[in-house]
Amino acid sequence: MRLRNIPGADNAISNSPLCIDLVPNNRGNWQSFFDKEQPIHMEIGMGKGQFITTLATNNPDINYIGVEMYSSVLLRAIQKMELLDEPPKNLRFICNDARLLSDAMAPGEISKIYLNFSDPWPKERHSKRRLTSHQFLASFDKVLSPNGTIEFKTDNLGLFEFALEEVPIAHWHLDQFTRDLHHDPTMNQGNIMTEYEEKFSSLGNPIYKYIISRNHK
Amino acid sequence: MRLRNIPGADNAISNSPLCIDLVPNNRGNWQSFFDKEQPIHMEIGMGKGQFITTLATNNPDINYIGVEMYSSVLLRAIQKMELLDEPPKNLRFICNDARLLSDAMAPGEISKIYLNFSDPWPKERHSKRRLTSHQFLASFDKVLSPNGTIEFKTDNLGLFEFALEEVPIAHWHLDQFTRDLHHDPTMNQGNIMTEYEEKFSSLGNPIYKYIISRNHK
Repeated sequence: MRLRNIPGADNAISNSPLCIDLVPNNRGNWQSFFDKEQPIHMEIGMGKGQFITTLATNNPDINYIGVEMYSSVLLRAIQKMELLDEPPKNLRFICNDARLLSDAMAPGEISKIYLNFSDPWPKERHSKRRLTSHQFLASFDKVLSPNGTIEFKTDNLGLFEFALEEVPIAHWHLDQFTRDLHHDPTMNQGNIMTEYEEKFSSLGNPIYKYIISRNHK
Repeated sequence: MRLRNIPGADNAISNSPLCIDLVPNNRGNWQSFFDKEQPIHMEIGMGKGQFITTLATNNPDINYIGVEMYSSVLLRAIQKMELLDEPPKNLRFICNDARLLSDAMAPGEISKIYLNFSDPWPKERHSKRRLTSHQFLASFDKVLSPNGTIEFKTDNLGLFEFALEEVPIAHWHLDQFTRDLHHDPTMNQGNIMTEYEEKFSSLGNPIYKYIISRNHK
């Protein structure tokens, strides 16, 4: 995604009631930021938010947290929310680095994590920065509920093969996967496309997806 | 590629003796911008120039023209050239839109065109902007020599399939192609990687390549 520095974005994020600080004080209290107490699903790297905003609108019985590191990008999502007649009340945002999530959330607070078109970090020495690395899976272990799952989509075959290899290393369970999501009737059912997915797949490129769980633990 | 606007880039390009104006006046005169009269090969979308600078250094008996639309990007290539002890004398640059090439070059002035990791323009309605579209092939017809060839590399499978389909539509001839360049001993021989290719392929993603010719005409 092209990043433009937007002057004032950091301030706008800090002042938005939709954005919650990722601080240890909030550990165990994430339900308190929503109107209703119900399962929390989280997207890491939400970009401009088309995916998670659609999910939040369609599923009022789930609370959603969107995580985005770049304030300039998150600001666009917030601005789009403010344009809605009835912005979903079950959607909140975090503007921070995913590496800090496990310090600011209690075990079991999150029921599902979505990873969509994550940065491939193509250099081998950066592999632990990939959100599907066993290092990241270990940190997600700390915040997910016992039956928690991760749903990961990418257009990057190399990243997908890497992600598949990391699943057993992290002692997770591979529930489902496909190398052509849009032509897989089962896995594509109800698929919500991200902005990037719509654009990228329009040339006919395949989208890869897996669903993994830690429910064996 | 991330684009940063570099203040003064346009001026630096205009003042560089390495950059030639893409104007109708230069039609038929491209050999005059080089020390020696010898075949001219051209890369369209050269980025920061690792590929074409390496080729120019390795092949003093060929003249090279690198075309890059964005002055901020081309400036980086020029700055790297200026750091070399002996910058190759057989390399010149054009900072302009590829659509204007055929108006400013005479038939047969160019012997070979390289297209590396061109913008996929994923939306169908933008397909004619893809450098491998039959519309672009028709414009390359106007500047290539009778035995002229195009060498195209991409990591985008959808773009590659599109490019393969356009070859017969444009009445060109498909000489060679591979869906895994780096593991194809014949086609990979002597392959010069671009910056993007090095980065992208390090995760194990395949690189697609074709060579096409108009020598049937």
